[in-house]
Amino acid sequence: MSSLTLFTPAGAIAKAENLKRAAKRLAQLGFEVGIDADALARHQRFAGDDATRLAALHRIADAAPSVALATRGGYGLTRLLDQIDWERIAHSIEHGTRWVGYSDLTALQNGLIAHKKGLAMWSGPLACDDFGRSEADGGVDEVTRDCFLEAMSGALEAVGFRAPTADFDGLEARGRLWGGNLTVLCSLLGTPHWPKVKGGLLFLEDINEHPYRVERMLLQLQQAGVIDAQAAVLLGDFSGAAKSPLDRGYGIKDAVAALRSRTQTPVLTGLPFGHVRTKVCLPVGATVDLYVQGREAILGWQSDARLAHAHDHHHH
Amino acid sequence: MSSLTLFTPAGAIAKAENLKRAAKRLAQLGFEVGIDADALARHQRFAGDDATRLAALHRIADAAPSVALATRGGYGLTRLLDQIDWERIAHSIEHGTRWVGYSDLTALQNGLIAHKKGLAMWSGPLACDDFGRSEADGGVDEVTRDCFLEAMSGALEAVGFRAPTADFDGLEARGRLWGGNLTVLCSLLGTPHWPKVKGGLLFLEDINEHPYRVERMLLQLQQAGVIDAQAAVLLGDFSGAAKSPLDRGYGIKDAVAALRSRTQTPVLTGLPFGHVRTKVCLPVGATVDLYVQGREAILGWQSDARLAHAHDHHHH
Repeated sequence: MSSLTLFTPAGAIAKAENLKRAAKRLAQLGFEVGIDADALARHQRFAGDDATRLAALHRIADAAPSVALATRGGYGLTRLLDQIDWERIAHSIEHGTRWVGYSDLTALQNGLIAHKKGLAMWSGPLACDDFGRSEADGGVDEVTRDCFLEAMSGALEAVGFRAPTADFDGLEARGRLWGGNLTVLCSLLGTPHWPKVKGGLLFLEDINEHPYRVERMLLQLQQAGVIDAQAAVLLGDFSGAAKSPLDRGYGIKDAVAALRSRTQTPVLTGLPFGHVRTKVCLPVGATVDLYVQGREAILGWQSDARLAHAHDHHHH
Repeated sequence: MSSLTLFTPAGAIAKAENLKRAAKRLAQLGFEVGIDADALARHQRFAGDDATRLAALHRIADAAPSVALATRGGYGLTRLLDQIDWERIAHSIEHGTRWVGYSDLTALQNGLIAHKKGLAMWSGPLACDDFGRSEADGGVDEVTRDCFLEAMSGALEAVGFRAPTADFDGLEARGRLWGGNLTVLCSLLGTPHWPKVKGGLLFLEDINEHPYRVERMLLQLQQAGVIDAQAAVLLGDFSGAAKSPLDRGYGIKDAVAALRSRTQTPVLTGLPFGHVRTKVCLPVGATVDLYVQGREAILGWQSDARLAHAHDHHHH
């Protein structure tokens, strides 16, 4: 049975029942679920003060469970980046721990790439948001659940999605997968925690950000030379922002067009990822292949099973 | 009589009457007011497409009026930064043009420092927001107006404000004044338009940004080494954000405390600047002296009159 530890590295959990429900469901899915001692801690809007949350990260890294699943995002991880002992985090990953989450976890995942290139964490669900939802509130999304189970078993080696057009038919690219939440990623620019990935596959999503703000961040990445240096950009969901009467038709499609007009790098849309119910698991920091045929896009990588097999092969 | 040209470099003007009212009032204040041909242009949410707005900037630079006052901010200047001919802008300033505005103008003002160190623009009012308000909506703020008139005449050589505490009693610092809107400034990080100011006086404001987002940006600047490299940081207004039940008491004071706990650089608050009615004019890019006595802070610089006198002195 896989051990799975729930921890809260950023914002405090408002309702403990969501955590309990998530823990119960994850146990029903076959995990041996543990809840970190400070998962329900509170300090202002944070799940405990910085020292508390930092200690939790290191405690989990040292325990190295099969899965370290964040309960929720919010804001708090960039506060910790300067103090994180990346060796300890790396040690847990080398011992098989899969760290999972999205949103604010983007800071941890990309900070890891900056400090320990070659290791990966998982961009995927959050316990409270994705496994803690009451049935009345929609329950658990089946695709999200199944993809998570497959990824955590080590068997997941590809995710597919349908792009809105066939404009990228025939595209093939290989590179390090990185990115996540656009605002959180941009908050690393200029800091020692920025992953200087060249030739990578950059995936991005955001929520409640007006398209002009999304565009401003995308153009910042372009002006910083980041977009041009990538093999491809994959855009997930960018919804939730209130429209303004000032928009006069301007929307996310125009923001994407503004980016595309400024770069040769393919900018794909339609990645099923973001602050939406159905989200895939993606290995942030791993080398990934992108294939597009017509509108069908596939992101593929060497699963742990294959890697193990390759290692076996190597030994004999 | 001083010539003053109104132009719209970013978001479109929703109501032409605000522009007319501003033009009328500025004429009553003694300016020979001109309105740029494309000041009321519209393309999506912008005041004309990028080529239109870029052409307007260059047209005004070439005409070199005494004052080039932006009608409003919004979003749009970072779209133009890669294409701006900084030589032409610099030429206008060397011929006496005072460029004025705030909010999105932060991109232009700090881009100028990045490309043409030593020249200054003015962080100050926007025509529609500050001179175009109907009497029913509060009319024109007298302090804002008087400070603007003094700055535009070349006589303004200091602004004072009262800090909330006397914690910085005795502080004296001299450095290049830079900054403005925090979100817009941070959107320059990592790009060629970032002004690499060391030993400066960094002033910051923002609107409608939750304190946790303000904090995230302040910590980004700190982690990027920007805050530690400054002689002082001056914080203006940070209001307008909706509080959240998740805050549990966390607010802007905690964001400021988080920054202060991470740097030796003095972080002052209380600067009368931001998206508020009463705002001072500040020479962005100029060398400025900061003196604090008790709670009273003064930012002083060589006025044009003094500079002219110094030049005279030099000649004889």
